[in-house]
Amino acid sequence: MPKSVSSSEIALGDRPKQIQLSRWLYRQLRQAILDGRLKPGARLPASRDLAKHNKLSRGTVVAVFEQLQSEGFLSSKVGAGTWVAELPEAPLRKKIPLPEVLRLPSALQGLSFPHPGRPFRSHEPALSEFPIEIWSRLAGRRWRGATVSVLGQSDPRGHRALRNALAEYLALSRGVNCSADQIVIVSGVQQALDLLARILVRPGDPVWIEDPGYFGALIAFKNAGAKIVPVPVDKDGISVAAGRRRAFHAKCAYLTPAHQFPLGVAMSLERRHEILLWAQQAGAFLIEDDYDGEYRFTGQRIPVLQSLDKRENVIVVGSFNKLLFPSLRLGYIVLPSCLVDTVLAFRFGVDLNTVGLEQAVLAEFIVEGHMMRYIRRTCELYARRLSALQEESRRYLDGLLEVSPIRAGLYTVGYLRNGMTSRQAEIAAAGHGIETMALDRFMLERADLHGVLLGFAAFKEARIRSGLEHLAIALERALKNTRVG
Amino acid sequence: MPKSVSSSEIALGDRPKQIQLSRWLYRQLRQAILDGRLKPGARLPASRDLAKHNKLSRGTVVAVFEQLQSEGFLSSKVGAGTWVAELPEAPLRKKIPLPEVLRLPSALQGLSFPHPGRPFRSHEPALSEFPIEIWSRLAGRRWRGATVSVLGQSDPRGHRALRNALAEYLALSRGVNCSADQIVIVSGVQQALDLLARILVRPGDPVWIEDPGYFGALIAFKNAGAKIVPVPVDKDGISVAAGRRRAFHAKCAYLTPAHQFPLGVAMSLERRHEILLWAQQAGAFLIEDDYDGEYRFTGQRIPVLQSLDKRENVIVVGSFNKLLFPSLRLGYIVLPSCLVDTVLAFRFGVDLNTVGLEQAVLAEFIVEGHMMRYIRRTCELYARRLSALQEESRRYLDGLLEVSPIRAGLYTVGYLRNGMTSRQAEIAAAGHGIETMALDRFMLERADLHGVLLGFAAFKEARIRSGLEHLAIALERALKNTRVG
Repeated sequence: MPKSVSSSEIALGDRPKQIQLSRWLYRQLRQAILDGRLKPGARLPASRDLAKHNKLSRGTVVAVFEQLQSEGFLSSKVGAGTWVAELPEAPLRKKIPLPEVLRLPSALQGLSFPHPGRPFRSHEPALSEFPIEIWSRLAGRRWRGATVSVLGQSDPRGHRALRNALAEYLALSRGVNCSADQIVIVSGVQQALDLLARILVRPGDPVWIEDPGYFGALIAFKNAGAKIVPVPVDKDGISVAAGRRRAFHAKCAYLTPAHQFPLGVAMSLERRHEILLWAQQAGAFLIEDDYDGEYRFTGQRIPVLQSLDKRENVIVVGSFNKLLFPSLRLGYIVLPSCLVDTVLAFRFGVDLNTVGLEQAVLAEFIVEGHMMRYIRRTCELYARRLSALQEESRRYLDGLLEVSPIRAGLYTVGYLRNGMTSRQAEIAAAGHGIETMALDRFMLERADLHGVLLGFAAFKEARIRSGLEHLAIALERALKNTRVG
Repeated sequence: MPKSVSSSEIALGDRPKQIQLSRWLYRQLRQAILDGRLKPGARLPASRDLAKHNKLSRGTVVAVFEQLQSEGFLSSKVGAGTWVAELPEAPLRKKIPLPEVLRLPSALQGLSFPHPGRPFRSHEPALSEFPIEIWSRLAGRRWRGATVSVLGQSDPRGHRALRNALAEYLALSRGVNCSADQIVIVSGVQQALDLLARILVRPGDPVWIEDPGYFGALIAFKNAGAKIVPVPVDKDGISVAAGRRRAFHAKCAYLTPAHQFPLGVAMSLERRHEILLWAQQAGAFLIEDDYDGEYRFTGQRIPVLQSLDKRENVIVVGSFNKLLFPSLRLGYIVLPSCLVDTVLAFRFGVDLNTVGLEQAVLAEFIVEGHMMRYIRRTCELYARRLSALQEESRRYLDGLLEVSPIRAGLYTVGYLRNGMTSRQAEIAAAGHGIETMALDRFMLERADLHGVLLGFAAFKEARIRSGLEHLAIALERALKNTRVG
């Protein structure tokens, strides 16, 4: 039974003449609760008592009690009287779970990426090849010449000089057809996808996602409330026919045409025409993630899907965080003109814009030709590293793992030939100090394709060789254990 | 009437032996549509005809027609036959409007902010006072010493050294009580609010917003689907009693306790205790935007509300973009421990993290004492500028406009004493080259408070004087016109 407080125990302060009686009582009681003189759970005297004691009408007291109750200071129950509202018990909060829509089966669960990376980490470029001294010189020059206008810049699309350089670079290197005004600078592909998903998708709208596909896109569209429509990928890229059957009226499709994530296939020309036709018929947007389209080691680079688009249905997103270095945090969206204003207006409420000196430095890195030189050099380097991976894998992993013949990107797929699941292989490899990612991490609905991702860009040929040796041992031992077990 | 195509006109390709008849017909027809040999609107021959002409069963043809129809390539209607699906007419897309929930009455509508800013722009610091040479030296040193590990850094909370420096700086300067692990680096207050709104609010959840209040917070919470609960601000800050009455069970409250935006008042100690009590009773989070708490020109700085919080109910957000320079794009969230993991997990799907070299430079700027020196110097400078504004306004604007006596921040409020609405005054001022923002831009439900924002931080005393002269002329003339009209 909570303690009762008598009317005389409630030490109410002086009652100034000019103030309403009810106002005075309200403030005094509230202050007593805030000060802790009236403690949570304390029972107040009956309104009749309190009125009499303070020479007030009972109606005034009842009105003040009701006011304080409506504000949550007091609680009451018929027959049980009125008491000071109890405080919640818990001294500290529990961890707040992610809201329903955001609680995702993370494709990266259980993985960790300590530095430095070990073979065959798949998401890092050859950082040791990056010309830090050139970048540093450009940055130094830029800061020495900095004026107040650099400090104050705030173009919502991003630094003008960078967008100019980028429009030209993307046209030359990737066949992108755009003006500098269609480019919006962001912090990377993930921000691009999050922004586009929030703008293009309403809760329940169907969106095509490649299966297997990029978990970052899945997260962005799920967070926006999309109905995810997994669309299988075959050797020609996404199956447009399957997508049409599953959800003709999808709002958009997320695509990796140059080098499908994670299978590595390039989308065939026929499929490209097919999906452009669908986009036009369905009024859908195609989001083309050109995350490593620069790296193709045999034949010509494949121009972006956007270069075939005559109807403003393709949005290109890309990033320099993998191409140059991860801590750069710069990427871009190439928008159809019809979307530019909408994206800028929405983006204002998300994080205003991306500016900062790095944009000016990157612009000069491109304009002075360093970007093209760096890509040419790393392209040759990565080609040699991939060749080493492909050739040596035949030596060390024959009958265990077959490396995909595709020659592009920063990683490739090794298909298991020993009956193991991709997750079994990942775990076995990790036990021998080898980093891989099981293909089943990227499956939406499909059955395991029995393969693992093998990154080669960041590793010298000798490390690739020794990595393969260890991987072979890991897969053989695990296999024996499986057989014995 | 669309053109009909006869069976013989459809030039189907060779029929390889090993392929199913239906598969062959499907591919041939689809290819003819993709190639444009069968044009949109073209009527196909009757299934009976096509079957006979190609020596197929009619069932095969019907099945293929149905398949192509389910994929959107063909259309049909009983009695009208089957034709190639029409393409949408519009050659280019129209502008995509912002989705419903995002279409906001922008508080900034009709305003523009050309460079350089003119008196009395309210959101810019004195950029010319910023020690570019020191920053440039730190940045240069940092880049010269850069190694591969700088290029690859990716702490999801942000650069460790910056978080350490920040925890110490915020404790000293603002009374914030936190460890470096409770800090997450973001690009500024807007990103902080957008992230927090998306994590803490489900569609329909009530959220208290100060009225008048900061439009950026309004946008962030509206975008998250919150039910906005405007809570009036008086001379002691937000009226907690009014908030309790309107929505006791709100999920959070957005607050500017040190220097209310836009009225400039500081939240009284009583109100602080009152709102902490409410947060505890309601289980709500208080989001404390400490956007310019460093600048107080009389008396002591007011420590953050968070310093009084014993129950992990307060989240502090802040930014260096106004304190130092806008193109820096760095801010922070100080989280209760219970929220850290959730914010990091969600943030991964939004833009991974904020890293980059500026964080290391800012850390050194703080550790080497440049930040404190810069704030001390600008604090004296801004105090003089505000004094000039307050004193000279009595000379030039007597009877027209009364400048608030509050001495804090980068801007203050001028209350109109000539009967004009705040919007009329803003327009009149703009006509005379004076930048102000009408108070009614920031009103959610309340009636106009007849005032305009006057920024003083970025302007020398002579410019403040001449700005006031022009403002006086503008307000006098407009008033005459109103009287005559």
